[in-house]
Amino acid sequence: MNSSLEIIEVGPRDGLQNEKELFSTAQKVELIRRSLASGVRRIEVASFVHPKVVPQMADAEAVCQQLTAQKGLTFIGLVLNERGLERAIATGKINEVGCVAVATDGFGTANQNMTAAESIEVCQRIIRRAREAGIPAQVTISVAFGCPFDGDVEVSHVAELARRLATAEPTEIALADTIGVASPRQVKRTIRAVRQNLGVDIPLRVHFHNTRNTGIANAYAAVEEDVCRLDASVGGIGGCPFAPRATGNIATEDLIFMLQRSGIRVAPDLDATIATAQWLETQLGRSVPGMVSKAGAFP
Amino acid sequence: MNSSLEIIEVGPRDGLQNEKELFSTAQKVELIRRSLASGVRRIEVASFVHPKVVPQMADAEAVCQQLTAQKGLTFIGLVLNERGLERAIATGKINEVGCVAVATDGFGTANQNMTAAESIEVCQRIIRRAREAGIPAQVTISVAFGCPFDGDVEVSHVAELARRLATAEPTEIALADTIGVASPRQVKRTIRAVRQNLGVDIPLRVHFHNTRNTGIANAYAAVEEDVCRLDASVGGIGGCPFAPRATGNIATEDLIFMLQRSGIRVAPDLDATIATAQWLETQLGRSVPGMVSKAGAFP
Repeated sequence: MNSSLEIIEVGPRDGLQNEKELFSTAQKVELIRRSLASGVRRIEVASFVHPKVVPQMADAEAVCQQLTAQKGLTFIGLVLNERGLERAIATGKINEVGCVAVATDGFGTANQNMTAAESIEVCQRIIRRAREAGIPAQVTISVAFGCPFDGDVEVSHVAELARRLATAEPTEIALADTIGVASPRQVKRTIRAVRQNLGVDIPLRVHFHNTRNTGIANAYAAVEEDVCRLDASVGGIGGCPFAPRATGNIATEDLIFMLQRSGIRVAPDLDATIATAQWLETQLGRSVPGMVSKAGAFP
Repeated sequence: MNSSLEIIEVGPRDGLQNEKELFSTAQKVELIRRSLASGVRRIEVASFVHPKVVPQMADAEAVCQQLTAQKGLTFIGLVLNERGLERAIATGKINEVGCVAVATDGFGTANQNMTAAESIEVCQRIIRRAREAGIPAQVTISVAFGCPFDGDVEVSHVAELARRLATAEPTEIALADTIGVASPRQVKRTIRAVRQNLGVDIPLRVHFHNTRNTGIANAYAAVEEDVCRLDASVGGIGGCPFAPRATGNIATEDLIFMLQRSGIRVAPDLDATIATAQWLETQLGRSVPGMVSKAGAFP
C-alpha cells in the first residue's frame, strides 16, 4: 500500500454542478483559492459544456480568467466534446483536460445522447486532439459500478472499455461510481480486471460518491489495490440527480481523516479543509454532507 | 472471507439511549418487533442501569415483559454491574447479557467512575455470575480505537485487555469504536493483535460508529479479517455524546447494502430494514443518519 497519495479536488466542478444553488464566479474562485491554500495541487475548476444544459458552469471562462498558473498546480477542465476542448484550450489556464466515457448505453443515451461505444470514440478524439495542442488528457468511465438505467455493470465490460480508451493514450483512466452503488469488493475486482486487461501501464484514478454510505469504504478498497489518485469534494457537496435526498462526492475532509488515521500521507491539510467545508455551509446556507467537519478531527 | 454473517441490532439500546427524545415502552417494543420481522435474530433490547443516569432505559423491565421468547432469538440486556445483572436475570426474558469494559482510565473514570483495570474485574465477575445463572455473557471493550479523554489507544493495550477478559470465558469479545475515530487499517491491526494475544478461540464482534464517516469502511475491514458478527442500529440512530452534531452507530440498512453488494449473505431483509428506518423518521420527527433509506436500494 502506498504511504502517500494524491487527492484531486472536484468540488468546484462536480460538486457545484450538482447543487441547486448557483455560485457566483467570485464564490467559485474563492472555493478554488481556499482549496489551493489548504494544499490541494490538482483541482477540477470548471466544465466546458453548453450553459443551457449546465447553467452552474456557464461562467467557466470567467472562472479560468482569475486563475494564476503556478508550477506544480494542475487546473482540470472537463470537456464532453471537441467544441468544449477548444474552449478549454482558449482559456490559456487549463493545463489538463478530463473527458467522460459512459459504461452503459442507457446512461449515455440519457445524458449525452450517444451509446457507450460512441462515447469512447468521442473521448479518443478529444484525447488525441488535446495532445496535439500540448495538453494532457485523462478520461473517466462513468457509471462503471452500476447504472440507474441499465442496472449492474459487468466488470469485464468496464475492463474492455478501459482497454479501448487506452489505445488513445490518455494520461490516466478513472473509474467513477457516478450514482454511489459500488461495494468495496466490487471496487477491488474492477481495479484488478481493468489493470489485467489494459496491457499498458496507465495510472488509475477513482471517483466515488457516498450516496449509499459506501464511498469511504470504496476509497480504502482502492487504496489497498494501490490506486493512489482519488477524487473528493470538500464538504461532500454534489448530490445525485438520480436520488434527490442523497449526498454527493466523498468529502475531501472525511477522506483525509480516514487516510491519515491509516498512516497515509496526503497534501491537503485536514484543519484547513474542515474550515473550507464550514465556509461552504455559510455560502450554501445549510449543512454539508461531510462528517468530520461536524464531529471534529482526532486525536 | 465469510459468505454470510450476523448483524446484531443495537438500535433499541445503544441507538435510543443516545437520542434526546424519550421513546415510550410501546415505541420501543414496536422497534424491536419490526427488527425481528425484518429478519434480525439477535438484538440488544435494553440496558439495566440506574434510571437517573440513563432515563431513556428506565422502562427496561417493562420492555422485556412484552418480549416473547422464541427459539433462535437472542434478547441481549446490557449490564454494567451485578445489580444490573440481577435485574436482567429477573426479567426472565434476557437470554444473553453484555457487559462493558473500558480501554482507558480517562473514559472509565468519566463514565463509570472506575479505571480500565477495575472495569475488567467488574466484567469478569459479571461474566462468571451470569454463567452460574445459566445465561451466556459477552463483553465489549469500549473506546478500543480512541478515547475522547486519553486520545490514541495502543493496539497492544487492547490486546492485553482482551486477554485478561478472556480468562473469565465470555462467549464473545467485542471491540467498540465508541466515538467513531477508527480507520480500516487500525481495525485490521487491532483484530490481528487481539486474536494473536488471546490464546483461546473466542469469537470477536465489532461495534462501529459512523461519527467521522469511517464506520462502513471499518465494518468491511473487519469482515476482511473474518469477523462475522457486527453491531448496527437501524437508521444509524444514536449520536455521540462527545460530538453533538455527529451521527451514531453504522446504520443497519447501510451495512446490509454494502455487504449484499459485496456478495455476503445476511439475515435481515434490506427493504424491510429501510421501511423501519423510515418509520423511525416518523417517530423522531426528523431525518435519520442512514443513507440507503434516502437513496434507495440498488439495482
